Amino acid sequence: MKDAFSLADLDAVSRLAGHLTAPDADAARAAAARQGQLTKPPGSLGRLEDLAIFMAGWQGREIPRIDRAQALVFAGNHGVCAQGINAFPPEVTAQMVANFRHGGAAINQLCGWAGAELAVVPLDLDRPTADFTQGPAMRPDETLAAMNAGAAASDPGADVLVLGEMGIGNTTIAAALAAACLGGEVAEWVGPGAGADDATMARKARVVAAALERNPDRAPMAILSALGGREQAAICGAVLAARAARVPVILDGFICTAAVLPLFAADPGFLDHCLVAHRSAEPGHGRMIAALGKAPLLDLGMRLGEGSGAALALGVLRAALACHGGMATFAEAGVAGG
Amino acid sequence: MKDAFSLADLDAVSRLAGHLTAPDADAARAAAARQGQLTKPPGSLGRLEDLAIFMAGWQGREIPRIDRAQALVFAGNHGVCAQGINAFPPEVTAQMVANFRHGGAAINQLCGWAGAELAVVPLDLDRPTADFTQGPAMRPDETLAAMNAGAAASDPGADVLVLGEMGIGNTTIAAALAAACLGGEVAEWVGPGAGADDATMARKARVVAAALERNPDRAPMAILSALGGREQAAICGAVLAARAARVPVILDGFICTAAVLPLFAADPGFLDHCLVAHRSAEPGHGRMIAALGKAPLLDLGMRLGEGSGAALALGVLRAALACHGGMATFAEAGVAGG
Repeated sequence: MKDAFSLADLDAVSRLAGHLTAPDADAARAAAARQGQLTKPPGSLGRLEDLAIFMAGWQGREIPRIDRAQALVFAGNHGVCAQGINAFPPEVTAQMVANFRHGGAAINQLCGWAGAELAVVPLDLDRPTADFTQGPAMRPDETLAAMNAGAAASDPGADVLVLGEMGIGNTTIAAALAAACLGGEVAEWVGPGAGADDATMARKARVVAAALERNPDRAPMAILSALGGREQAAICGAVLAARAARVPVILDGFICTAAVLPLFAADPGFLDHCLVAHRSAEPGHGRMIAALGKAPLLDLGMRLGEGSGAALALGVLRAALACHGGMATFAEAGVAGG
Repeated sequence: MKDAFSLADLDAVSRLAGHLTAPDADAARAAAARQGQLTKPPGSLGRLEDLAIFMAGWQGREIPRIDRAQALVFAGNHGVCAQGINAFPPEVTAQMVANFRHGGAAINQLCGWAGAELAVVPLDLDRPTADFTQGPAMRPDETLAAMNAGAAASDPGADVLVLGEMGIGNTTIAAALAAACLGGEVAEWVGPGAGADDATMARKARVVAAALERNPDRAPMAILSALGGREQAAICGAVLAARAARVPVILDGFICTAAVLPLFAADPGFLDHCLVAHRSAEPGHGRMIAALGKAPLLDLGMRLGEGSGAALALGVLRAALACHGGMATFAEAGVAGG
């Protein structure tokens, strides 16, 4: 039984930066060598080969497996919703949590399809974060509590962790995190989210600009507290806990990727064990992924959140491991040319 | 029990063109309306929504299902291999057929993962087609026999048909079909295939140019006979048989897409029931798909063939139908904003 991971304080993140777990280079090399012996032209399975080698490294075995896939969906509410920046009312966050629990949402069907065990973690939904145009969204102790809730939910014995979120208003949160962590024009990071019209998008951009001005500290954990929300902090905590346990992570789309930008700002190596599942239809996501130096696995015009893209990518990951583990080698199959 | 589909002669293809089955518009409309009521922002599942509506139309029911997915891999050998245009010897075609039958290939693992029943159909492997630099690759009766073999293998009771191929030398065949059906420079259609080096690629381009000059008839079925191979003709036959039975088809990559270009040349509507699974890493594939007016579902740098990309896309299609059929509506879930 591995020890549970938790943070003593927010500064612990920068103290961790120099002491991250690394993938097992020998296992990754053995997996790459195996790929070269399987009955196919070398490299012809493209990213499926990369995925198998990535998993081998993090799992520390030539033939990685997914016996247990955990999916975590963190939910939070945001004070900035008072500014009228979203197409749905904030009550929908709790209603969707109930929908997740009753099995009626997209993520339920996709976890069923991909073979992931889904847990939904609502974070103080009746106590939204503060409106970040007026001051920091969270106090440091609130951020720490949410990060540790995320870490505690993450199973160190899982073979892979799928991350998602739900929170009305949180594309605005994501845009603010991206602008603070990556720079660029605010308008580049603002998109329609769940269906904002042009007037609402213009309001989102003004709200994000106001939040950046009102919260000028650009230290990574200060950004997370001031501009993030509880589900974003929980995602960061889950990513750190997974890293401590060498559990590979599949990040979902725009909001989930934005959530980990403060970790990336603290040390890009914090995300070495993370895959980006897909490119969201939210316009800023492609640029965000490029800034991370990652390539999304899928590009299906999805923009739902909930971990839906990550669950779909889990299916692709399982397919990659099925090939890696199940195919015959040239020698085994008696095929010439290996 | 539906009647078995077969062609009396090659001219039957042009006679079919005006009398193709069409999707059920009412079922597609009902599926689109259902998508608008499910607990998610409208359109937020992107192409998963399009897939559900596409399947509803072809299956003629608001909630389409995949109880039986059939995967067919057709294999053929090519006289043009005498010209030294491939990285592997022609014997590998039969060796890989044996590998498919023993369950050791990528397609076996991917069909297992995606829940498809795989059948491998070798077509006269010990009797390669003629070298098309010297004359037509096949006589019309050989083409017809291969088309009808493909049609006969296709199950009219399947809910979806996954198509793939195996045939050493057949990226050269595919390049010739593409150049004849779509025009453009020969070099644009020639790529590394299973691993040709620059000198081999230059030879491939010269061989394709010679074949086009030696076989000038550009009538669609004349192109298939002169420049195709048995597995290409079988794919065409299977696509036609599936269309007659309204079975949606998932085409694999470069070779499989090239195989159906003669049908597209005869009437673009022949491919209305076909999805293109993925964009192959073979350089000409993106241009080929664009010419068909289709968008690939996946882009994972794969270039294996065997139906591997199509089987992976079947998984995505199953995920789409799981969401479409399994999600709650706003009314059912008591979620506001629907």
